[in-house]
Amino acid sequence: MSEHTYKKIELVGSSPDSIEAAVKNAITRAKKTIRNMRWFEVTETRGHILDDNTIGHWQVTVKVGFTLED
Amino acid sequence: MSEHTYKKIELVGSSPDSIEAAVKNAITRAKKTIRNMRWFEVTETRGHILDDNTIGHWQVTVKVGFTLED
Amino acid sequence: MSEHTYKKIELVGSSPDSIEAAVKNAITRAKKTIRNMRWFEVTETRGHILDDNTIGHWQVTVKVGFTLED
Amino acid sequence: MSEHTYKKIELVGSSPDSIEAAVKNAITRAKKTIRNMRWFEVTETRGHILDDNTIGHWQVTVKVGFTLED
Amino acid sequence: MSEHTYKKIELVGSSPDSIEAAVKNAITRAKKTIRNMRWFEVTETRGHILDDNTIGHWQVTVKVGFTLED
Amino acid sequence: MSEHTYKKIELVGSSPDSIEAAVKNAITRAKKTIRNMRWFEVTETRGHILDDNTIGHWQVTVKVGFTLED
Amino acid sequence: MSEHTYKKIELVGSSPDSIEAAVKNAITRAKKTIRNMRWFEVTETRGHILDDNTIGHWQVTVKVGFTLED
Amino acid sequence: MSEHTYKKIELVGSSPDSIEAAVKNAITRAKKTIRNMRWFEVTETRGHILDDNTIGHWQVTVKVGFTLED
Amino acid sequence: MSEHTYKKIELVGSSPDSIEAAVKNAITRAKKTIRNMRWFEVTETRGHILDDNTIGHWQVTVKVGFTLED
Amino acid sequence: MSEHTYKKIELVGSSPDSIEAAVKNAITRAKKTIRNMRWFEVTETRGHILDDNTIGHWQVTVKVGFTLED
Amino acid sequence: MSEHTYKKIELVGSSPDSIEAAVKNAITRAKKTIRNMRWFEVTETRGHILDDNTIGHWQVTVKVGFTLED
Amino acid sequence: MSEHTYKKIELVGSSPDSIEAAVKNAITRAKKTIRNMRWFEVTETRGHILDDNTIGHWQVTVKVGFTLED
Repeated sequence: MSEHTYKKIELVGSSPDSIEAAVKNAITRAKKTIRNMRWFEVTETRGHILDDNTIGHWQVTVKVGFTLED
Repeated sequence: MSEHTYKKIELVGSSPDSIEAAVKNAITRAKKTIRNMRWFEVTETRGHILDDNTIGHWQVTVKVGFTLED
Repeated sequence: MSEHTYKKIELVGSSPDSIEAAVKNAITRAKKTIRNMRWFEVTETRGHILDDNTIGHWQVTVKVGFTLED
Repeated sequence: MSEHTYKKIELVGSSPDSIEAAVKNAITRAKKTIRNMRWFEVTETRGHILDDNTIGHWQVTVKVGFTLED
Repeated sequence: MSEHTYKKIELVGSSPDSIEAAVKNAITRAKKTIRNMRWFEVTETRGHILDDNTIGHWQVTVKVGFTLED
Repeated sequence: MSEHTYKKIELVGSSPDSIEAAVKNAITRAKKTIRNMRWFEVTETRGHILDDNTIGHWQVTVKVGFTLED
Repeated sequence: MSEHTYKKIELVGSSPDSIEAAVKNAITRAKKTIRNMRWFEVTETRGHILDDNTIGHWQVTVKVGFTLED
Repeated sequence: MSEHTYKKIELVGSSPDSIEAAVKNAITRAKKTIRNMRWFEVTETRGHILDDNTIGHWQVTVKVGFTLED
Repeated sequence: MSEHTYKKIELVGSSPDSIEAAVKNAITRAKKTIRNMRWFEVTETRGHILDDNTIGHWQVTVKVGFTLED
Repeated sequence: MSEHTYKKIELVGSSPDSIEAAVKNAITRAKKTIRNMRWFEVTETRGHILDDNTIGHWQVTVKVGFTLED
Repeated sequence: MSEHTYKKIELVGSSPDSIEAAVKNAITRAKKTIRNMRWFEVTETRGHILDDNTIGHWQVTVKVGFTLED
Repeated sequence: MSEHTYKKIELVGSSPDSIEAAVKNAITRAKKTIRNMRWFEVTETRGHILDDNTIGHWQVTVKVGFTLED
């Protein structure tokens, strides 16, 4: 990481498929309004269990860092 | 929580009355600019002590999660 | 989550395949005796390394929340 | 606390009114099946926000300790 | 907080009524010997359960900061 | 640890003699109702001080893992 | 801190010179878009090492609190 | 623990013999100036290694709680 | 785990594909110089975001335990 | 550290200049009443931001250990 | 501790007898290859339970610091 | 950080002058035996107090990451 200033925001993404897909979904949604995303940190991994005892979706909390342009 | 993407922001609210009122004040202020708030998590509980040794106000740090609309 | 009371139990599940499969195995085993499971939180991710330096199995600690019926 | 052995279980209670009421609701529900409860420790304080931006209910995670009878 | 030096002490207060009352009781007791208390931080919230399964008292650990006079 | 599913429970044991004895007392009490205990993790070490300033008993919080039979 | 509501954001600042300069650079960048900053909390201190084994820059994560105007 | 107010102080005790002896030594020293000690919590366990690679002494950090008299 | 002595080292592995692949890559690299690896613990999960907002690689911090031979 | 008993107190020091100066100011103030200070541990680094967006002062929380004389 | 540079390594030691013996066994094994060990910090205390519900061995994770010679 | 594998080691450096100088001293010592150091993370900041109540030296614990060559 270079000498820029970054801002970190905290997102919660989800997916019925996997932890990785839940992270990707959060980043895909975030790119609508945020530019210059550089890295993420997964801080929580959770999930929802359906009435038939299968996993409805995986849910991850991610901190995403992006460059603040000068 | 459904399969949406959420953003979490961190607020500090205060009240002379109680911890609960301090949380409510933070949410009441936040609703001026944020829609679709869904849940909160209290991460710190502090307070200010006056010169007469009574509690001037309670001060809570809350993380508030809200849905990012598609 | 509604206004019910929940109980959280702590399980350790494992799988030779992936983190997600280890979580699923824990829940599949738990459903034999527990009803109304609603969510889980992954608190530890570990694994066992075999003599040939491959991963024998993934091992996750999960807290599972379920509704206490009235 | 005397020289007994205790078990600690983790509950999530909720109430529309206050943090204290959410703790009480968890204990009230637990006493249906558990005897000799001695103390509790609040480990998480969260809540649900309604569509009108008011707090739907407070939700606390409590560890409850009870004596294992000899 | 200004450029003074502060000392923080750790107290445990209790009350049969509420978390807030337990904090106030700790500060009321502390003011007998400590001057210039400025703020507090709640670090633990616990309680005692009576034989009839009601809460005997709430018990909070608070760190209290006070100005060291020059 | 093999590919079984385990459950972890949290116990508080005590002994007037030592930390080790407090752990053993917790396990001895638990074996009355739990089979297939495999490991423990000490998460808290505390104790009670008597009026003559000697240690009345050591008190440990242990998480105990046991195999869930298929 | 008075009875206002505050928001806390998380920034990563850097400087080739010192930890203090890295914090200042983050705040200097933030003031372009944020008003009423009141305090900061350093949560991580890291740095980048160059090929000649000198420190390329210090990098701090800071949470910055600012007043939300009524 | 009853409805008193307690103060907790942090001590570091040591002993060439054992963790338990290090805790006892801290309490024995503290009783010279502190009355009504009720409980302790071990927060750190460390030790010093001598030039011959034996353990010179065990060193524990303990928080000690004592009743503040009315 | 038997009565051997183990050493734990901390590695950072990465992969464009998944968290599991990043762990495997770390272990594959480590086996060039380390024998008798027995288990690992994932302590951090992060990743790098490319200019097109896709995930360049997953990056995990793992502690790896291996037997010290007698 | 030798086999003495130590007490640790928690101070908050501040300085307009640097983190190091804030620590020194806390120790300079503490020496008016405390003897035999041996070491310190910085547990929090914070600061105050002025209306012109410069740093008014750095504020550190330090635990200071000192020997209890026999 | 003087102005040297130290390295800290993480070991897991075990003993059928006690926590202290498990620490000693780790250090005894480490001295075969490491010189100038100065201190240790116990970070985890665990153990293995045998089929007859007795403790097979205590297992401690220790960080050991040693001087890097100039 | 690219797709290499890194190893992280834990060092304790010290300096009579500043936190930054203590980090630099640790890295300067480490480069005698370690190549390809890339980043560091400060995990503890402590110091030694002299008999005249001045700071003898600053002491930092740093984790240093370096590339494992293929």
